[in-house]
Amino acid sequence: MSNLPSKAHFGSDNVTGIAPEIMAALEAANNGGVASYGEDAMTEGLNARFSDLFETTCRVMPVGTGSIANGLALAAVTPPWGEIFCHEEAHITIDEANGPEFFTGGAKLHLMAGEQGRITADALRAAATRYSRDDVHHPLASAVSITQATETGTLYSLDQVGAIGDVAKAEGLAFHMDGARFANAVAALGCAPGDLTWRAGVDLLSFGATKNGCMAVEGIVLFNPSAERVGRLARLHKRAGQLYSKMRFFSAQLEAYISNDNWLNWAGHANAQAARLSAGLADIPGVSLDSPVEANEVFCRLPQASYDAIVAAGIGTYPLSDKGDGTGSIRFVCSFNTEAEDVDRLIAAAREGAS
Amino acid sequence: MSNLPSKAHFGSDNVTGIAPEIMAALEAANNGGVASYGEDAMTEGLNARFSDLFETTCRVMPVGTGSIANGLALAAVTPPWGEIFCHEEAHITIDEANGPEFFTGGAKLHLMAGEQGRITADALRAAATRYSRDDVHHPLASAVSITQATETGTLYSLDQVGAIGDVAKAEGLAFHMDGARFANAVAALGCAPGDLTWRAGVDLLSFGATKNGCMAVEGIVLFNPSAERVGRLARLHKRAGQLYSKMRFFSAQLEAYISNDNWLNWAGHANAQAARLSAGLADIPGVSLDSPVEANEVFCRLPQASYDAIVAAGIGTYPLSDKGDGTGSIRFVCSFNTEAEDVDRLIAAAREGAS
Amino acid sequence: MSNLPSKAHFGSDNVTGIAPEIMAALEAANNGGVASYGEDAMTEGLNARFSDLFETTCRVMPVGTGSIANGLALAAVTPPWGEIFCHEEAHITIDEANGPEFFTGGAKLHLMAGEQGRITADALRAAATRYSRDDVHHPLASAVSITQATETGTLYSLDQVGAIGDVAKAEGLAFHMDGARFANAVAALGCAPGDLTWRAGVDLLSFGATKNGCMAVEGIVLFNPSAERVGRLARLHKRAGQLYSKMRFFSAQLEAYISNDNWLNWAGHANAQAARLSAGLADIPGVSLDSPVEANEVFCRLPQASYDAIVAAGIGTYPLSDKGDGTGSIRFVCSFNTEAEDVDRLIAAAREGAS
Amino acid sequence: MSNLPSKAHFGSDNVTGIAPEIMAALEAANNGGVASYGEDAMTEGLNARFSDLFETTCRVMPVGTGSIANGLALAAVTPPWGEIFCHEEAHITIDEANGPEFFTGGAKLHLMAGEQGRITADALRAAATRYSRDDVHHPLASAVSITQATETGTLYSLDQVGAIGDVAKAEGLAFHMDGARFANAVAALGCAPGDLTWRAGVDLLSFGATKNGCMAVEGIVLFNPSAERVGRLARLHKRAGQLYSKMRFFSAQLEAYISNDNWLNWAGHANAQAARLSAGLADIPGVSLDSPVEANEVFCRLPQASYDAIVAAGIGTYPLSDKGDGTGSIRFVCSFNTEAEDVDRLIAAAREGAS
Repeated sequence: MSNLPSKAHFGSDNVTGIAPEIMAALEAANNGGVASYGEDAMTEGLNARFSDLFETTCRVMPVGTGSIANGLALAAVTPPWGEIFCHEEAHITIDEANGPEFFTGGAKLHLMAGEQGRITADALRAAATRYSRDDVHHPLASAVSITQATETGTLYSLDQVGAIGDVAKAEGLAFHMDGARFANAVAALGCAPGDLTWRAGVDLLSFGATKNGCMAVEGIVLFNPSAERVGRLARLHKRAGQLYSKMRFFSAQLEAYISNDNWLNWAGHANAQAARLSAGLADIPGVSLDSPVEANEVFCRLPQASYDAIVAAGIGTYPLSDKGDGTGSIRFVCSFNTEAEDVDRLIAAAREGAS
Repeated sequence: MSNLPSKAHFGSDNVTGIAPEIMAALEAANNGGVASYGEDAMTEGLNARFSDLFETTCRVMPVGTGSIANGLALAAVTPPWGEIFCHEEAHITIDEANGPEFFTGGAKLHLMAGEQGRITADALRAAATRYSRDDVHHPLASAVSITQATETGTLYSLDQVGAIGDVAKAEGLAFHMDGARFANAVAALGCAPGDLTWRAGVDLLSFGATKNGCMAVEGIVLFNPSAERVGRLARLHKRAGQLYSKMRFFSAQLEAYISNDNWLNWAGHANAQAARLSAGLADIPGVSLDSPVEANEVFCRLPQASYDAIVAAGIGTYPLSDKGDGTGSIRFVCSFNTEAEDVDRLIAAAREGAS
Repeated sequence: MSNLPSKAHFGSDNVTGIAPEIMAALEAANNGGVASYGEDAMTEGLNARFSDLFETTCRVMPVGTGSIANGLALAAVTPPWGEIFCHEEAHITIDEANGPEFFTGGAKLHLMAGEQGRITADALRAAATRYSRDDVHHPLASAVSITQATETGTLYSLDQVGAIGDVAKAEGLAFHMDGARFANAVAALGCAPGDLTWRAGVDLLSFGATKNGCMAVEGIVLFNPSAERVGRLARLHKRAGQLYSKMRFFSAQLEAYISNDNWLNWAGHANAQAARLSAGLADIPGVSLDSPVEANEVFCRLPQASYDAIVAAGIGTYPLSDKGDGTGSIRFVCSFNTEAEDVDRLIAAAREGAS
Repeated sequence: MSNLPSKAHFGSDNVTGIAPEIMAALEAANNGGVASYGEDAMTEGLNARFSDLFETTCRVMPVGTGSIANGLALAAVTPPWGEIFCHEEAHITIDEANGPEFFTGGAKLHLMAGEQGRITADALRAAATRYSRDDVHHPLASAVSITQATETGTLYSLDQVGAIGDVAKAEGLAFHMDGARFANAVAALGCAPGDLTWRAGVDLLSFGATKNGCMAVEGIVLFNPSAERVGRLARLHKRAGQLYSKMRFFSAQLEAYISNDNWLNWAGHANAQAARLSAGLADIPGVSLDSPVEANEVFCRLPQASYDAIVAAGIGTYPLSDKGDGTGSIRFVCSFNTEAEDVDRLIAAAREGAS
């Protein structure tokens, strides 16, 4: 894959760099002689900052990647003989190289179909009640994990999250939210982050930051933090090699990320560019959307010629997934620093290729 | 633990910040639109850079912490029914919260005594040949891991490493080196990095960088990289959540770290400060060294009053480990940015307290 | 559940006792002073006996349960980042309490739909080629496991097994057969055991014996036994606590089981009783089969009143699975010692209840 | 290793057969049509029988081998980040192929020296208090495991067990007893089984039966059975493939084993033969004991010629472990059916060889 000198890359929200505010936070944190291994003031203060942000007492543990956040969150609430319900296209089952099985010590992922990347409360209830909880032959229904925003760029509404939370509570399941793009969801829904999580029944959130301007940090947010669960998560976190000695550089990123509504502003910008892009693509002949655009990703079908024109225009993108009929599927992702003019260039190239 | 505004902290080489050259490298890497997930040019070029540095074809995989580097390196060469020989004070058994057992899927660490933090080739041979390799009742001797520089601040000489390498080869063990302070060892020995590793029989090196000026990165260096071992390590690496999406920020740190002999200059500076410190402490009544000072750490015994004076002088330090007779044990660590005047202040305070 | 003095129990093929030939073999093996831990002559001779039976060089390792046989067989051929393809109703995913995940160190089971309990070669090909084998993000397609006879009492034909074997070979998958009721399959198909296994591409077979007259033993049969795979399986076997010290009592059971075509005669008898049962139920109003009866199990739908009559007649059975419309689903299993008159009594009771 | 037609084998207490009372119990249990999977009356009654035997409410779970009993017992009480204290010659670390690490999901065994195969309460206290329980860097002290009778044929006195129990309680450790030869210990000490276990602080006992006349069964005995611990053990038991479908054959063995004081009578006989043997060997020149003989094993040093004479006499034995000076070490084990005349033959041969 070529390296682009510009920010014009729509393949992933990971290929962009770090937001200036985050770089500045790293530099500010780079003073000498504070305690190592998470005992610095910034890391200690992060719990208070996140409790304010979510309007409830919670704990946050920085980790290096979303995969680790997911694996550890699930391990905190799932025994090795447990079962975790998730969508069949969930990142945790497709893209984490059996990470959840690794971190939990062998729990099973129970995959569920669902339109537009969402599982439903009814389907969850049926799946979770399939086995008696007392029958040791079967996996023990332990947790449900949903991705918000989903892997297909859609959103669960507050009611949909709450409905799943109700089932989780009724069936004794822990409720995990993979929030790699949580910021985009909150920005799109315009709700309070607490509304989308603990008030809707969520127990643990993988709070994504890397895709939205940070360097390499995600937070595991634990709501209703019992001493038992906090202790368990701390043990799992250390064992997974996540107790960074210079933890303040991770905490500093998270602190700057949630300051001044940076996270929401950046995500909102990304969402807006995705809306701009999907609107622009909408009336190009031969182009169609594969999924509703509800956050910062556009999944669409393009003529091969449109794709070729986009590449020729020097716009970074992932490969087209050939459908064998002269068209292919592709995902365009907009980021905190995607520029409108690059969106327009992409649209223009697509239009040109389609004509 | 108090936060110090100065760099005067001798508790750990993790409490210092990031070297300016590394911060600059992060900023330089922060341009927009390169491929994510390790496919960028810098990450691809890192193998060549490390091959030059070690004067042999090798592969390097960036990870977030030394614990992960150790765990994955050992997992690459040890089956779940395997046994790993190491010193009884090894970081991998004391401070990694059963990380090696986790990453390997249940391998056993076989602890060995050894003076001054070093295991000997003879002791290794005896331990590794205790069981028949064909008897499935017993763990299978699979790997040996030594720490260079050791956990007590000493060094294995080139000959000592080579002797262990000879035993490893003869007994069919993989040879791992935990090089959290590898730079300090190379700087102190004044040898080529290849002499201390692959030429002496080392198969995998946890190449430390975080303690010596980087933010949060270590490299797993694989010598004699067979396709099978490279593939296995890649799978383990991803499963452990180490395939960072913005990998270039990790690669950029490593690239800057090994450029211009930065790593050796910084480590050499740290070693020199430790030598200065131990020389200064040497003639203070009531102060004695617990271990030879061969790299950047000083393990010593202090009168309580000396410790109190050091703390009162505003110098950062870990707690004194009380011996119950008015003295205690303590470790002082010097870093890439430890200033000589702070070393002298520490010495002066210790002397004052002892008088 | 009540204890019946008679053999009239159709709930499972596990509830019957041990065949007299097997008890006799245990008694014969009970002489004093042979070597322990599998080194006795009988255990050593078992490889030759099974090689004769399957008409190819193979290795057999006795284990205590089918779950362990499945878990260890899969662990021998699947890395922790691997994926195992199986039917969504497979015993390995429904009834083994995450045993496969445990024994493999975290491999994932990829569930596939399929009519009448069978997966198809085409569906397997599609599933196994979904991901690139070189992309570490995704689980590595490693193995396929089919159950013969299936969990719904049906059979794969020789051609169907062979077709799956062809796909497995083409896609680099190991091919495991869960043969808890392998005897019933071979008896029903009237083929050579080698035709149904290695000649059709099967690499490992969980050779069931407990359900067909033995006390507690299954054999893991390894075809094309490479030294590497034999060694790996031996290590896994011991680690799982399966190296029984008095191994000859397990070997003696297997030896008697395959002697004089006992296994086939007993299974053939069980199949014949199931055929008798399904024929007798076929013309009872309100009774219908849920699945074709191809081996020794009858899955059917019964009126509640028929079920009640069966129970009242003192015939052992599992509970009826209530469909909410006055009928329910149930499984009747026939065993090596099921008596025709008990089959007839069951039919008569069912008929009486339905009138 | 040759097969002997007689019972004259002193290599292991596993090489003998099954006691007639146990075979009879298997035959009696072999009636048709009882429920499978542990739901039969005998299995359900076993808890009551063991509660009577130990004079306290306890639960017993049959398993196939001592290794599985140990692994599951430890897994019930040890998290993956936990540490288990045991003797450096403990079976769980030497002979179980990393079974404890497997069943616990990666716990660490902390090996301790101790004379005559016994760890001391003082050494345990020091080891268990080495780390702060709140420091996540270090393994969490979770359990202590002692073997009774020990691997060197000695015994812990009731006071010694109680002292360890006191430390375990004070330091928050679960207390496991590997009782592969528990019967020999109880017979030798002449105490109540409850005195040697729960009254002395033991939480879980691997209750050995295979070495003392049974075919292949051990019991995990759980004292003070909380619902949480019972449930956890049941899940681990099933996942390890130990929920035998014809469980009654395992339960029947245990039931017959503890009936009529069989277990104690048989163990007492074995102990007496060992005493006879050691007394006979004691005055043979060149023969010395390596360990006190307190149960049913004799560890001694023999001249090579004595060993040769023993073998020539047709007495089964393990190989001599050559000391390089014309002598070697060897273990002789006496069993429930060792005949005094065979003991005398062994002594005579040893004496002959030594002259």
